[in-house]
Amino acid sequence: MFKVKVYVTLRESVLDPQGTAVMHSLHAMNYKEVTDVRIGKYMELMVEKSDRPVEEVVKEVCDRLLANPVIEDYRFEIEEAVAQ
Amino acid sequence: MFKVKVYVTLRESVLDPQGTAVMHSLHAMNYKEVTDVRIGKYMELMVEKSDRPVEEVVKEVCDRLLANPVIEDYRFEIEEAVAQ
Repeated sequence: MFKVKVYVTLRESVLDPQGTAVMHSLHAMNYKEVTDVRIGKYMELMVEKSDRPVEEVVKEVCDRLLANPVIEDYRFEIEEAVAQ
Repeated sequence: MFKVKVYVTLRESVLDPQGTAVMHSLHAMNYKEVTDVRIGKYMELMVEKSDRPVEEVVKEVCDRLLANPVIEDYRFEIEEAVAQ
């Protein structure tokens, strides 16, 4: 069993209106020291061992469902999880 | 200038319908090896040096705006960023 942490972020060149909204809220709350906010997704998957390498499965899952490769980048970390 | 990475996740005891929906989609796409999906948020903040320690500012920002402490946990990492 593997625990996979997936981070999906908007590409650098893509505008992030949600992040801008959060930044404006922070400025309104007087946190002027925050100068930029970018918002992405963080996902934890539990993946069982199968006949295919887990890296290959996770990469395919990210490309096909979890991230939109046109506007998003992703990276992931795989940890061996203790079976419960 | 600091780059702060914030991870917000649902507490263990809180149901994650979005994650369940993603898991069902993955099963429908024949990725049966994925047995659990939890979805959270990942945020990158750029924070300028101020008279208060950056840890204190980020903790306050998370408690007050970025996370809902009733149902969510958060953790963050602070990196010194090179001024541009």
